[in-house]
Amino acid sequence: MTSQPDTPLLDTIRDPNDLRGLNDAQLQQVADELRAETIAAVSETGGHLGAGLGVVELTVALHAMFDTPRDRLIWDVSHQCYPHKILTGRRDRIRTLRQKDGLSGFTKRTESPYDPFGAAHSSTSISAALGFAVARDLGGAPEHGLGDAIAVIGDGAMSAGMAFEALNNAGHLKKRMIVVLNDNEMSIAPPVGALSSYLSRLYAGAPFQELKAAAKGAVSLLPEPFQEGARRAKDMLKHMTVGGTMFEELGFSYLGPIDGHDMEQLTGVLRTVRDRATGPMLIHVITKKGKGYHPAETAPDKGHATAKFDVISGKQKKAPSNAPSYTRVFADALLQHAADDDKVVAVTAAMPDGTGLNLFAERYPSRCFDVGIAEQHGVTFCAGLAAGGMKPFCAMYSTFLQRGYDQVVHDVAIQRLPVRFAIDRAGLVGADGATHAGSFDIAFLANLPGFVVMAAADEAELKHMVATAVAHDDGPIAFRFPRGEGTGVDMPDRGEVLQIGKGRIIAEGSRVAILSFGTRLSEVQTAAEGLQAKGITPTIADARFAKPLDRDLILDLAANHEALITIEEGAVGGFGSHVAQLLADAGVFDGGLKYRSMVLPDTFIDQASPTQMYETAAMNAADIEAKVLEVLGVETLGRRA
Amino acid sequence: MTSQPDTPLLDTIRDPNDLRGLNDAQLQQVADELRAETIAAVSETGGHLGAGLGVVELTVALHAMFDTPRDRLIWDVSHQCYPHKILTGRRDRIRTLRQKDGLSGFTKRTESPYDPFGAAHSSTSISAALGFAVARDLGGAPEHGLGDAIAVIGDGAMSAGMAFEALNNAGHLKKRMIVVLNDNEMSIAPPVGALSSYLSRLYAGAPFQELKAAAKGAVSLLPEPFQEGARRAKDMLKHMTVGGTMFEELGFSYLGPIDGHDMEQLTGVLRTVRDRATGPMLIHVITKKGKGYHPAETAPDKGHATAKFDVISGKQKKAPSNAPSYTRVFADALLQHAADDDKVVAVTAAMPDGTGLNLFAERYPSRCFDVGIAEQHGVTFCAGLAAGGMKPFCAMYSTFLQRGYDQVVHDVAIQRLPVRFAIDRAGLVGADGATHAGSFDIAFLANLPGFVVMAAADEAELKHMVATAVAHDDGPIAFRFPRGEGTGVDMPDRGEVLQIGKGRIIAEGSRVAILSFGTRLSEVQTAAEGLQAKGITPTIADARFAKPLDRDLILDLAANHEALITIEEGAVGGFGSHVAQLLADAGVFDGGLKYRSMVLPDTFIDQASPTQMYETAAMNAADIEAKVLEVLGVETLGRRA
Repeated sequence: MTSQPDTPLLDTIRDPNDLRGLNDAQLQQVADELRAETIAAVSETGGHLGAGLGVVELTVALHAMFDTPRDRLIWDVSHQCYPHKILTGRRDRIRTLRQKDGLSGFTKRTESPYDPFGAAHSSTSISAALGFAVARDLGGAPEHGLGDAIAVIGDGAMSAGMAFEALNNAGHLKKRMIVVLNDNEMSIAPPVGALSSYLSRLYAGAPFQELKAAAKGAVSLLPEPFQEGARRAKDMLKHMTVGGTMFEELGFSYLGPIDGHDMEQLTGVLRTVRDRATGPMLIHVITKKGKGYHPAETAPDKGHATAKFDVISGKQKKAPSNAPSYTRVFADALLQHAADDDKVVAVTAAMPDGTGLNLFAERYPSRCFDVGIAEQHGVTFCAGLAAGGMKPFCAMYSTFLQRGYDQVVHDVAIQRLPVRFAIDRAGLVGADGATHAGSFDIAFLANLPGFVVMAAADEAELKHMVATAVAHDDGPIAFRFPRGEGTGVDMPDRGEVLQIGKGRIIAEGSRVAILSFGTRLSEVQTAAEGLQAKGITPTIADARFAKPLDRDLILDLAANHEALITIEEGAVGGFGSHVAQLLADAGVFDGGLKYRSMVLPDTFIDQASPTQMYETAAMNAADIEAKVLEVLGVETLGRRA
Repeated sequence: MTSQPDTPLLDTIRDPNDLRGLNDAQLQQVADELRAETIAAVSETGGHLGAGLGVVELTVALHAMFDTPRDRLIWDVSHQCYPHKILTGRRDRIRTLRQKDGLSGFTKRTESPYDPFGAAHSSTSISAALGFAVARDLGGAPEHGLGDAIAVIGDGAMSAGMAFEALNNAGHLKKRMIVVLNDNEMSIAPPVGALSSYLSRLYAGAPFQELKAAAKGAVSLLPEPFQEGARRAKDMLKHMTVGGTMFEELGFSYLGPIDGHDMEQLTGVLRTVRDRATGPMLIHVITKKGKGYHPAETAPDKGHATAKFDVISGKQKKAPSNAPSYTRVFADALLQHAADDDKVVAVTAAMPDGTGLNLFAERYPSRCFDVGIAEQHGVTFCAGLAAGGMKPFCAMYSTFLQRGYDQVVHDVAIQRLPVRFAIDRAGLVGADGATHAGSFDIAFLANLPGFVVMAAADEAELKHMVATAVAHDDGPIAFRFPRGEGTGVDMPDRGEVLQIGKGRIIAEGSRVAILSFGTRLSEVQTAAEGLQAKGITPTIADARFAKPLDRDLILDLAANHEALITIEEGAVGGFGSHVAQLLADAGVFDGGLKYRSMVLPDTFIDQASPTQMYETAAMNAADIEAKVLEVLGVETLGRRA
């Protein structure tokens, strides 16, 4: 295992400017060394590997041919940006990837001028690039000036509606801009949908060996007089671009497909486009996810995301776990119900593995639907399924459900259709940072009339909530659960159907009641142990429901305690806000109640370990204990109310 | 003026079943009478006219050829559904359109089995139809059984990313389903974008007179043995469908274009598709918005939405107004700033007239962007513009901003980019009902770190907020304002830049403070007059900001009054929730405070007049007065605390 490979040429590259005098052979050498360095770094940090390896040559070629950072290079999703970070002055910090105070695993405007537009969610790059292109033509003058706008977007990301909207607008506006379609036939999961088949057809008949000459003659596609010898190339390209018409019909000049691992083709085509393009241009580049690292190339997910690993064997170094992941508990529970009830169907938006629905798809392929990166469609498709008499489970990460919010409101809630939302990665998520945090779902769902909103306190509760969702047929229902492993509680054989809108008392105490919504419950219990040592025995309750609220429970807790504290892993506006509204309306505050609502802080929390994140968010047992002492006015050593 | 035209054949149609024995000539007569009845009804009710007139023949033909309600007919947006409602047993109530307790102006599941999927926002129909098609094939058994799934979608709606996502998924799943593309080259505004040009090219070379035969031969496109005489038609169709490849590439069989006002063509094609289609099918129908009613056909918006009107002249009967609309105040204020500052640009998503940006587009065509029905792209395009040094104003209705929510979070808020959100139609909207209410924006924006969220109390305040937004360069800023006219206050020549996070005292009083966020302020003032007669002089304050909150003002009001009431035209989770969080954290509730938060009720409020809606929502002066009396424990005649 080499953690620092031999990289003599790469060592001389301080920033992209140093690439600009090199020839194709030298650029290829930089690429080779960059690939080795990327593998070495990720072996130490873990993270997204396959996507970066697939674009090493493209990264080198783009920086060599364009004038970054004046030219704005925008990586879609940007999990493929590690080689880009190494080339743009961040090599010395590359082994801090995804760690607290280290480099983000995604592009980030505050991190470098070479990251003109951050990302992490998919399919935003063309819209952003169009914004830069228009700003340039209107005289926008941000730092570094404003040159070309280049979006690099994968074939999976291209299937999202947002990318189509952006192409449609860009084709209409006709501004000079460049979209590099990085086609590796692989997003996180193999891409689905008709567009993907279409893209495959585009290069099915055009073997790369014929393309070298064509690429050099790419000029013939552009609105300039023919170059010498370009006629043959032109004819060849004409043949190749049959089928590229979809992009041409949307107003783009289509160029490709070209071999994304052939430096000569890449620099040839990019140079030509740079020198000649006038309007919107789409360059179709074929790459191989995981390219150049055998363990990644041969993995089913092409080394999409990895823990730390051994470079020689590719073997990942994962800590053994004692409890099943919430994702797995959800998936297994759903499978149980699916066996009994053939109306149960499942929908994911390009996250079959992440949501655990890969298991469902294996067992019931005709009842599991991966709609692609298409949350808007996915939610309304579920609404249609529900209206058609099925019991659809819409399994999405909290942060991605934001993409289908209007559909949740307009198609599901207003029509009171029984769509079941399984909201994974709710709350803080660790290394993926602020863009992936699921902080807002409680707030944006619990104020929708007719919605039922649950959060699981542990993995057994999650199992009950899946059962509750299957049984609930009177309108939409959502249950949220966090990333990571459960708490190791005993698991029931089958989930029980919970009574809608009823919480539960976990422990009876006095003076203070802590009402938890979700998995912070275990921290509350730990805090209670600490408090007991100080003579305080809090009542602990698990709300289970943010909507409908358990009015009786809440008023009872308020009436029988000096203080009431709610806690949830979500932003203000959610569970605690609904409780406060109830207490206010009921006149509980009139006579005084020490009420506090512990919510996520009003900041976006950067990547860190989950433990560090909870510390930052002041959501740990110690914070809960401190809050109780503060509210009760108990003085503690070195910490005052 | 005839409010009840002569409709002998239509009078015999109780439901679509009565259409099914009629020949083409009779169906055309039904269509003619249906058109007259639609015009007569809308002349009395106001509403969407042009879209319905354009699909009269299509509506008749679809119901005649398909087995509704067993076959699910889904109207996209569904503002074109009035003829459909007349044909499906609702003719007796058609003159209650868009009125309280009357028929909705859109399709609605609770209104009729012939409305299998409600709509109002655009581009949801293909997703819903796919849901029904899949449910059918999996044995879903809702009421009425489950037959074909048919989506009727306009060319404007087709340009939204969500429609593309649905096509992409449907083309992949290959279920039998039918998409009727109703191409009238007109959504609310003329459609924009490259797709629109593409659709125009599809029929530019195919005059309708050649199509009659072709339509009858449509069978030749379908996977069945050739029919006699079909060869000639097949060749003709082949010619016509050149360019239909975009849909074919997405896995649909494309059929068209056909004349949507020719009953014989329509029934011929629909019958063939009904009898032969196996997979997903797209029928491209060309119609004329406003067809058959001269004043609509010749209006710039093709009679899109109208007040009550005189049938003979087409002249609309609008009440004269005394104050400018909020929309107009926003638009004029923005123009003022645009004249001084060439970095100010404006973006609308297919609503240039509704947002007032048509004025901006006229004056500064190169700085105004209609991105089409594409809120996701629109928001991120603004983020790109901001990153490129411009000052983008993203003008959207509150309810439509929901479609770009993830982009607001991920591209704008996390990157702290200074995009200015002008949120029109915030709060209750009247006749358009629940689907158009802007109830959730305060909640879903005010919990985003770094956001500034304002609401205008009147039209002068709106002018100040536009100025404030132009000046604010440190992160995103939003200001919301309602539908309709201002209060008639004196208008300043220019808006002043407000201090961020500072509210204002409107009137000093005692005992109770009412803190208003937005235009309910005038009702608060009216309530105060009523209260003064009862010896209570409330303090009145205008918060201006939901974020950041004016902490000093709020704590001051709490400290110096027995009771504090907040009011906002939004759901729980918004302004009042943030105030409650502040009060709780500051320990104000510990000692007791009569705090109440007046928010929109936890129901979707159906269409009604704005006045009726505010009554339903308990948001009027009388409700505020009652709330004050209740909180202070003052008994009133017939109404108790």
